[in-house]
Amino acid sequence: MNSAANREIHLAERPQGWPTEDTFRLVTTDVPTPGPGQVVVRNTFMSVDPYMRGRMNDVESYAPPYALDAPLDGGAVGEVVASKADGFASGDTVLHGLGWREYALLDAAAVQKVDPALAPASTYLGVLGMTGLTAYAGLLEVAKMQPGETVFVSGAAGAVGSVVGQIAKLRGAGRVVGSAGSPAKVERLRALGFDAAFDYHDGPVGELLRSAAPDGIDVYFDNVGSEHLEAAIGAMRPNGRAALCGMIAQYNTPEPPAAPRNLAMLIGKRLTLRGFLVADYWHLIEQFVPEVGGWLRDGKLSYDETIVDGIENAPAAFLGLLRGENLGKMLVRV
Amino acid sequence: MNSAANREIHLAERPQGWPTEDTFRLVTTDVPTPGPGQVVVRNTFMSVDPYMRGRMNDVESYAPPYALDAPLDGGAVGEVVASKADGFASGDTVLHGLGWREYALLDAAAVQKVDPALAPASTYLGVLGMTGLTAYAGLLEVAKMQPGETVFVSGAAGAVGSVVGQIAKLRGAGRVVGSAGSPAKVERLRALGFDAAFDYHDGPVGELLRSAAPDGIDVYFDNVGSEHLEAAIGAMRPNGRAALCGMIAQYNTPEPPAAPRNLAMLIGKRLTLRGFLVADYWHLIEQFVPEVGGWLRDGKLSYDETIVDGIENAPAAFLGLLRGENLGKMLVRV
Repeated sequence: MNSAANREIHLAERPQGWPTEDTFRLVTTDVPTPGPGQVVVRNTFMSVDPYMRGRMNDVESYAPPYALDAPLDGGAVGEVVASKADGFASGDTVLHGLGWREYALLDAAAVQKVDPALAPASTYLGVLGMTGLTAYAGLLEVAKMQPGETVFVSGAAGAVGSVVGQIAKLRGAGRVVGSAGSPAKVERLRALGFDAAFDYHDGPVGELLRSAAPDGIDVYFDNVGSEHLEAAIGAMRPNGRAALCGMIAQYNTPEPPAAPRNLAMLIGKRLTLRGFLVADYWHLIEQFVPEVGGWLRDGKLSYDETIVDGIENAPAAFLGLLRGENLGKMLVRV
Repeated sequence: MNSAANREIHLAERPQGWPTEDTFRLVTTDVPTPGPGQVVVRNTFMSVDPYMRGRMNDVESYAPPYALDAPLDGGAVGEVVASKADGFASGDTVLHGLGWREYALLDAAAVQKVDPALAPASTYLGVLGMTGLTAYAGLLEVAKMQPGETVFVSGAAGAVGSVVGQIAKLRGAGRVVGSAGSPAKVERLRALGFDAAFDYHDGPVGELLRSAAPDGIDVYFDNVGSEHLEAAIGAMRPNGRAALCGMIAQYNTPEPPAAPRNLAMLIGKRLTLRGFLVADYWHLIEQFVPEVGGWLRDGKLSYDETIVDGIENAPAAFLGLLRGENLGKMLVRV
């Protein structure tokens, strides 16, 4: 880290299909100075997340598109190095939304103090942060999982999926099945307590799911979309619910995929597909932190982190995430 | 009607794709005699409904498949002509599930008396029966329409769709849009009080819907599926809900259609797609009959019937229904 300069990652061009290294540009600027009511944070960890791919398109969505030739943003944690804001002092560990840079200038209202003694700072970007809350809200509020039910999670070795499966077990699911993209990930899912897991490269997803959940599923937590969603609809028992969290299978395809072709089953089986954004569930944070924090403290819930070092390697970390090279939460140590 | 013989329609073969006249066989049997606790009903009207197409396939679904070389069944009203059951006398008008025949033999528990003085007997198969309850439950319970919202109904000139649109207006929808398959049907929708209506043959459904609801829609009542569903997802505002009632566009295609390709929008817009069966909503009948019966009595709600005469023409009526030749409820006067 260079204390005299601030390095940040800009969006150099809007990707068509898969982003590449050319999508990004490393830019060196001055370290900012805080104005009244502001703090400067030296980031220690930043998050790369699949939703960021959507923001690289010039399409109005729930989050505004990233601007060209300006720094990207996203979840980060760091240490306050300069403060002109009441209540913040140098040395405070904080969570905020200006990742993709070494130093962030923020209004105090956009910064949240976290306790690094309670849990490592990086977990506030993962299992104790947006990632964990996404898993918790999607499984329990959107899909309304009930004890005894069978749950299927796609992308189950990812940051969200691995927490979904574990919360399902801790909340009394009868059977939890996960899909992932490599034998090592499948192995990891079994170690995390999934009752069954499969590598989706090993055959049609519908057949793999039928073997893993021969009596069908009640809840599907979708991180993948496409063939996985079609398979889940096919396997659902009456009154099944799918929480749609992500469709990473189609983020980089210029033409959307045709699946699922079996939506008519939604009627006969009275199924519900429901898309959600974690932003609508921040009110759950008060019950989420003690419950999930308790499981972490008691060693009942594990989490994986894949850490890439250096802000200059953030683009590579993001591309690796889209290719599924991470186990658990993908982070950049700035 | 021949009083010495009972004519009924059997399933002669399972259709591949579109059914034809060869799918059916007219069979003459004896008029049944009631045993203890039974009644014999001379049917006056029978219903033909899109869901019957699914029961012609040899596939377990929410309703069992029709048996080959046996009479079809479905909603019917008629007059008791012989009774060995307490509480039923010759001349009573009753509703039951053994249509597709001139005379039906039923246990008393499978028969429900209706009041032909309150409303014409045929309405108990339509607006005051399963059809009307489907519209009511789907719009208000499944899609949870709120006053001021914009509602889109496909197949809007059909028995269910025309009632959905009118209930939406009566319950305070801000704007109601319907699609139908002919200029005459579109005209009829305008007369029924729809704010906008279009013939889906006039262009891509997505474009027609954007013109009819330029500010988007909140609720979609789906009778059609396929391109209509894709268009509705595209037009939905945040937190939109679709009640999936039927997908008549694909009942007769051996290969399911590929649409909709835009399911990823369910996430960013937080949309819900929910399939339903009216059978799960019979408990609403107590509030449905007085509310909808009141609107009928006060002339606030209109209904259309397309009536075909003669049990021998029931197959033609059913085929005409699948081709959309009906305005409102398709009935056979037996």
